[in-house]
Amino acid sequence: LKEGVSYIACGKTSGAVGTFAYFKPEVEEYICKRIGISYAVVSTQVVSRERFAYYLSLLSLIGSTLERFATEVRHLHRTEVDEAKEPFYQGQKGSSAMPHKQNPIICERICGLSRLLRANMLAAFENINLWHERDISHSSAERVILPDSTIIIDYMIKKMIEVVKNLRVNPKSMLKNMELNRGLIYSQKILLKLMEKGLPRIKAYDLVQDISLRVINNNSSFKKEVLNDARMAKLLKKETIEEIFNPYTYLDNIDKIYKRLI
Amino acid sequence: LKEGVSYIACGKTSGAVGTFAYFKPEVEEYICKRIGISYAVVSTQVVSRERFAYYLSLLSLIGSTLERFATEVRHLHRTEVDEAKEPFYQGQKGSSAMPHKQNPIICERICGLSRLLRANMLAAFENINLWHERDISHSSAERVILPDSTIIIDYMIKKMIEVVKNLRVNPKSMLKNMELNRGLIYSQKILLKLMEKGLPRIKAYDLVQDISLRVINNNSSFKKEVLNDARMAKLLKKETIEEIFNPYTYLDNIDKIYKRLI
Amino acid sequence: LKEGVSYIACGKTSGAVGTFAYFKPEVEEYICKRIGISYAVVSTQVVSRERFAYYLSLLSLIGSTLERFATEVRHLHRTEVDEAKEPFYQGQKGSSAMPHKQNPIICERICGLSRLLRANMLAAFENINLWHERDISHSSAERVILPDSTIIIDYMIKKMIEVVKNLRVNPKSMLKNMELNRGLIYSQKILLKLMEKGLPRIKAYDLVQDISLRVINNNSSFKKEVLNDARMAKLLKKETIEEIFNPYTYLDNIDKIYKRLI
Amino acid sequence: LKEGVSYIACGKTSGAVGTFAYFKPEVEEYICKRIGISYAVVSTQVVSRERFAYYLSLLSLIGSTLERFATEVRHLHRTEVDEAKEPFYQGQKGSSAMPHKQNPIICERICGLSRLLRANMLAAFENINLWHERDISHSSAERVILPDSTIIIDYMIKKMIEVVKNLRVNPKSMLKNMELNRGLIYSQKILLKLMEKGLPRIKAYDLVQDISLRVINNNSSFKKEVLNDARMAKLLKKETIEEIFNPYTYLDNIDKIYKRLI
Repeated sequence: LKEGVSYIACGKTSGAVGTFAYFKPEVEEYICKRIGISYAVVSTQVVSRERFAYYLSLLSLIGSTLERFATEVRHLHRTEVDEAKEPFYQGQKGSSAMPHKQNPIICERICGLSRLLRANMLAAFENINLWHERDISHSSAERVILPDSTIIIDYMIKKMIEVVKNLRVNPKSMLKNMELNRGLIYSQKILLKLMEKGLPRIKAYDLVQDISLRVINNNSSFKKEVLNDARMAKLLKKETIEEIFNPYTYLDNIDKIYKRLI
Repeated sequence: LKEGVSYIACGKTSGAVGTFAYFKPEVEEYICKRIGISYAVVSTQVVSRERFAYYLSLLSLIGSTLERFATEVRHLHRTEVDEAKEPFYQGQKGSSAMPHKQNPIICERICGLSRLLRANMLAAFENINLWHERDISHSSAERVILPDSTIIIDYMIKKMIEVVKNLRVNPKSMLKNMELNRGLIYSQKILLKLMEKGLPRIKAYDLVQDISLRVINNNSSFKKEVLNDARMAKLLKKETIEEIFNPYTYLDNIDKIYKRLI
Repeated sequence: LKEGVSYIACGKTSGAVGTFAYFKPEVEEYICKRIGISYAVVSTQVVSRERFAYYLSLLSLIGSTLERFATEVRHLHRTEVDEAKEPFYQGQKGSSAMPHKQNPIICERICGLSRLLRANMLAAFENINLWHERDISHSSAERVILPDSTIIIDYMIKKMIEVVKNLRVNPKSMLKNMELNRGLIYSQKILLKLMEKGLPRIKAYDLVQDISLRVINNNSSFKKEVLNDARMAKLLKKETIEEIFNPYTYLDNIDKIYKRLI
Repeated sequence: LKEGVSYIACGKTSGAVGTFAYFKPEVEEYICKRIGISYAVVSTQVVSRERFAYYLSLLSLIGSTLERFATEVRHLHRTEVDEAKEPFYQGQKGSSAMPHKQNPIICERICGLSRLLRANMLAAFENINLWHERDISHSSAERVILPDSTIIIDYMIKKMIEVVKNLRVNPKSMLKNMELNRGLIYSQKILLKLMEKGLPRIKAYDLVQDISLRVINNNSSFKKEVLNDARMAKLLKKETIEEIFNPYTYLDNIDKIYKRLI
């Protein structure tokens, strides 16, 4: 966002066709410096609309990324998943038809607004191709897309912060959902351990898929099937298998990831 | 699709600027009739590109609707929902990383292709604004978007038919998921029945929401809470409540809906 | 436009998930008939957003076509062409920098607004893919795109009518511009007449291009060069050539074209 | 372009869900450094599609700017303007219908291709919103838009260079066209000089517009009308007016502008 603003915070005083007929280039440089903005290296009657298109593409990138976060919450919010919910305030009405239903309305709104940002970006890109030293066609579009997009992104960011800060996380459901496929989420760990032991990937994959399908068809536990499989027994020790089925090793690098981010 | 084809299956022989300088309008009408297509009532050097934009907008409408169907399958396919799955063929590899994992790859592909249809439609709309009697700018875009979009829609339709025909439906999960909120899906039926008995909507809504929240907070059954609620007892008879909690009444109109459709 | 309105003027009373749990399909049919709209053959909690996307695509088709008309006026308006100008009202200010300059500001505005219609259409297409029986994501976008697009198209149509009704046509410039290439616009007529006389197209084309380049290089008149060309003299009589250089034959079919249109 | 490439030249080895379950973050950093690319600070199963959307938005910015250059050539190329023409090669066929006609086909092609770049960018933005740790929907779209867009931009740049290098500039037409409005292009210079002499802008504007309209209506010369105007005579000396009507002063800053650019 900061990068985008610095790119469009750009002035020009090069006159009606960009020839500096009335002010010298040095005047432009002086004025823009005084205001604290950059100057357009080359300009016509106007600053190139490419700058605005670039700006709206950055807003749309931010918007589409917020949409991705919001979509994640919408997925986690559904009754069958129930891992996280956006805030629901005391006194808030639920669905108008179904009183018990708490819909992820903020996240759904964020998704809809992201569509507007993409749409406005598009009009900004079409605005670039002005005729000669300028025509005024960009103006009617910009009067809508510039205020709308900046207001929308401000609103989206505020709302997403509100959602993240007040997210109602449900760790019990998370653990329950992890067990839904009866240990199959550890299949990749088994696969890699087999390869580590020298089994070629294709053989390791076929072996793991074979046991996996048995788990699915017999409604059984992956851990048990692995422990009971004669082929596995030859390749992996019991303690190794026990260690593989420990979910907490997935968190080993979490601090490093956060550190990188911040 | 048929409507769209009839709209673009349209000819013209009105010459280089549309003045019929060499063939009379009657010749155009005769030729187009012989070929079995319509003729452009007014044309320039070319048939108006509006026709192609309209055609691609219809393809994109079909594509976006297929995307909606495919999104529905993707939702139903997830482990936590497990109500329906796209086909998985004998010998098909699962996820490359996780051997047990059967991803809804066909439906995800349909969603991605729908984005291409929308994109191509957009180029077709920009093609409308040709200069004077024609410029050739539409040609470089049309050589890509017309074959790509028609090939894509054909592929999407075939794949969606394949998915629907071979959908692996899981009625057990459906019934289980219906019970996930312990009867709250019947809250609207209660609401409407209360209104039928003369309770104003706002009062009925508040009463139902009050009981609903109790169900959520106490992890109890909606049916039991309704039966045990003193306020309810005054308004609804036990048999009425029993009847409300029967899911099969939702299927009463299913035949009529299918009849309307076909 | 009428077709589009009839397509979105469509109602539903099939309830919160489209099962007609509270009103029978017959009630829906009766109500919609009374209001004078169609009913959605199949619906979920809402009418399919495909209808709105289709409607906005029709508005955008109209808008892009108006943009094409407006672009034509902008071309004809330029100083070097000067064949037609959009109205300039008594007391209207010209360009703010150049007092004499009358810019085609209405037509430029129409072009800019057409970009907004295309952009809004796009958001409408993304709105189609709602989750399950509906999510509310379409709502935040529709609150902007539906009123904006309908207001914009209304304004564009009114403005274009105003431009066409008050177009300041300059037939003198038209005739002058027709003479700018010293008769070369009749080259196709010569080409076709030569083919009529039995010359193969490729030979006729080469002969006409040869003479054309002479006209361009010598800054001479095409008619004179044709009349003086020995090869031509063998193929076409002097009277035939004279007839070919008569511009009014291009208007022969004008009444028929208007009749077809209206 | 360089900035864009550095942004997408970004690797990850954080595993199937981004937890670094099999390689530590340090391994990722080492590998990416060895290859000479950056690493994704946070990733899921894939690198965020935001990177590809950003890249395609930069390609589209470049494309839309090339389109603007190409549109300028198309304008200058037209018979009535005739100030510059794209190259026409010995032996090249002109328009298929009109042998003499040399169309700006390269520039028109560049304009059409720019529409494809905008369209592909749009699909890239829709690709950002992947579900959870990834879904594969982006893949079917990326297989088309990534190769197509990079091939298109390469072709456009090469073609635009060819056009600029071989542009057939016609300075005679430029001077002739400058005289088309009989000196009115100097109206802003007069306007500003009047303001310099102390006349308020609104009065200066009205005076210049008044004389301008006389020039237009009488088909006379602006310079003569200014010299003959009694009000002007009171404000500006004859030598000042003569100096104002010298076109070469517009080139005063041309070297500085080029210096800034390079």
